[in-house]
Amino acid sequence: MSTEQIRIPLGKPGDFHVHLRQGDLMKIVTPTITQGGVSIVYVMPNLVPPLIDVDAVLAYKAQLQELSPETTFLMSLYLRPEITPEVIAQAAKAGITGVKCYPAGVTTNSAAGVSSYEPYYPTFKAMEEHNMVLNLHGECPSGDDITVLNAEHKFLPTLAGLHSRFPKLRIILEHCTSKAAVDAVLACGPTVAATITAHHLFLTVDSWGGNALNFCKPVAKLPSDRTALIEAATSGNPKFFFGSDSAPHPVSAKRKELGAAAGVFTQPYAIQYVAEIFDNAGKLDKLKGFVTDFGRDFYQTSEDKDVGKKSVTLVKADTVVSESIGAEDLTVIPFLASQSLKWTVEWE
Amino acid sequence: MSTEQIRIPLGKPGDFHVHLRQGDLMKIVTPTITQGGVSIVYVMPNLVPPLIDVDAVLAYKAQLQELSPETTFLMSLYLRPEITPEVIAQAAKAGITGVKCYPAGVTTNSAAGVSSYEPYYPTFKAMEEHNMVLNLHGECPSGDDITVLNAEHKFLPTLAGLHSRFPKLRIILEHCTSKAAVDAVLACGPTVAATITAHHLFLTVDSWGGNALNFCKPVAKLPSDRTALIEAATSGNPKFFFGSDSAPHPVSAKRKELGAAAGVFTQPYAIQYVAEIFDNAGKLDKLKGFVTDFGRDFYQTSEDKDVGKKSVTLVKADTVVSESIGAEDLTVIPFLASQSLKWTVEWE
Repeated sequence: MSTEQIRIPLGKPGDFHVHLRQGDLMKIVTPTITQGGVSIVYVMPNLVPPLIDVDAVLAYKAQLQELSPETTFLMSLYLRPEITPEVIAQAAKAGITGVKCYPAGVTTNSAAGVSSYEPYYPTFKAMEEHNMVLNLHGECPSGDDITVLNAEHKFLPTLAGLHSRFPKLRIILEHCTSKAAVDAVLACGPTVAATITAHHLFLTVDSWGGNALNFCKPVAKLPSDRTALIEAATSGNPKFFFGSDSAPHPVSAKRKELGAAAGVFTQPYAIQYVAEIFDNAGKLDKLKGFVTDFGRDFYQTSEDKDVGKKSVTLVKADTVVSESIGAEDLTVIPFLASQSLKWTVEWE
Repeated sequence: MSTEQIRIPLGKPGDFHVHLRQGDLMKIVTPTITQGGVSIVYVMPNLVPPLIDVDAVLAYKAQLQELSPETTFLMSLYLRPEITPEVIAQAAKAGITGVKCYPAGVTTNSAAGVSSYEPYYPTFKAMEEHNMVLNLHGECPSGDDITVLNAEHKFLPTLAGLHSRFPKLRIILEHCTSKAAVDAVLACGPTVAATITAHHLFLTVDSWGGNALNFCKPVAKLPSDRTALIEAATSGNPKFFFGSDSAPHPVSAKRKELGAAAGVFTQPYAIQYVAEIFDNAGKLDKLKGFVTDFGRDFYQTSEDKDVGKKSVTLVKADTVVSESIGAEDLTVIPFLASQSLKWTVEWE
């Protein structure tokens, strides 16, 4: 007795927030994009040193393209004083899509980040004119009354203020983690959107104490926040779309009793993780909007522009997450390692 | 030019919440009590298996006494169905001081803990009659709306309820971590007190993400909670006294990317850590009350009953916390390893 396999066409999904790293780690991570059911990625610029130069971005893109020839790479610059309006004009001409803004010191390789936004108003104005996207890491650095728990909440007035001052500038609140952030994005006009990761649909504050693999910035918050994220992701509202914030670190950097690296590695199973949540919520009909359509619409990039010609179908068949990717010093442990997920992806 | 060394007599300090473990780890940890400036300790019963038998408690006490002959050991039983009113009578006669209550599953070796308090009312009644102390691990297990952040807050009505039902039963809310807990203890009568650890006077929620050495249960909370703990500890109110909850784990159990053990190891520098905070707060005049007098008063044990004859003097001289205690498989890393503290202790 056989039953027909359940198959859901997803078109050409996007992951609009990825960390592909450099050197040998890049060579391990980049080829897993396709395994995770993703056709197009938006690449973060927090390399060492940060990407603040158009030529450096293009050279990095060429490296990535060679490692994953069927993937479409949208590229970004790292906001710093070097990113003048002139550099924005040059970047737009070179096909660079956006600029990532890290507040100083909040996450991996953000030491060079921004302390004050006003000096960048001319840059934001140029980005608005050149139709570039501003990607915000939406956290305030910890201080007297700011902890990892309310760092995002405290940032939300900054988001509202930038949107008010630059209403035509497309802004993405990256990896939003809280009900407050969802509400703030909903309160903004159509030029403001948010990405939501896979792992924040699974985790809460209880998940990362003593569990460095689940420790990331922004940290996972309360169960009520997770519920708000799942509702936003499955709502069909195009202001919310998928960006994994997949952030690989060698297990040696996680297996530390002090100072374990922040970041959850989800690239090789990106779409599979998200499908699990949408399935559990009874919202698989909303999956294609979240992982394919809404991000593409916001980034103004249609499927026919992709480098890869194949599309993805979600198939009801178990995926067992591997124990690790890479080897030896560059062993990376994926999210939910060794666990079973209910869906897999096929390219055709 | 020489200045006279600043010396503050502390009498015979107590640490009213210690984990001294078993076997080889016990042999490493127990001798460090004296190094930490402590004359008398209240010993937790969460061994494997838990201490639910009077003879087992006495045998454990004999082992500890041999390892640290100058230390006075107050002993406890682990609350389980085996701890009947008859066992309480037997324990009181044998000189056992109290009973520790762990909610099931909230911390190290608590799987055997309590799910409901009502079945223990006869036991609590017997404890009241026999003048034994009830030590509460004041957290509710995580669930739909309970996380490690509010687990203590959610427990506070249970504390108030037990106090109301057994007003003469001496109850200690162990290792309290929040302003809400401080307020709840203040609202109870004089039979209810709270211990405060050293590490919760230093840490906040930002301290333990990716830092397993600082990860403990209950977790460190917000800066405002830490402020409330420091205020309570330095207030001179006898309802608050020192219990380190020193909880050693081999570094191998901390250096795990998933499931790192909960607990901060403070035993070898217990009084030195607390002195650092009291000094920073300008409250060294309140230190002896917190570390010596208030706990002794609550436990009704005067200094002349101690096994050891020497007293402790706090001396203004740097203490450098060692990198580790023990060796090889039983290497344990103390809190603030390799850092310098401003005070040391002398026995005389």
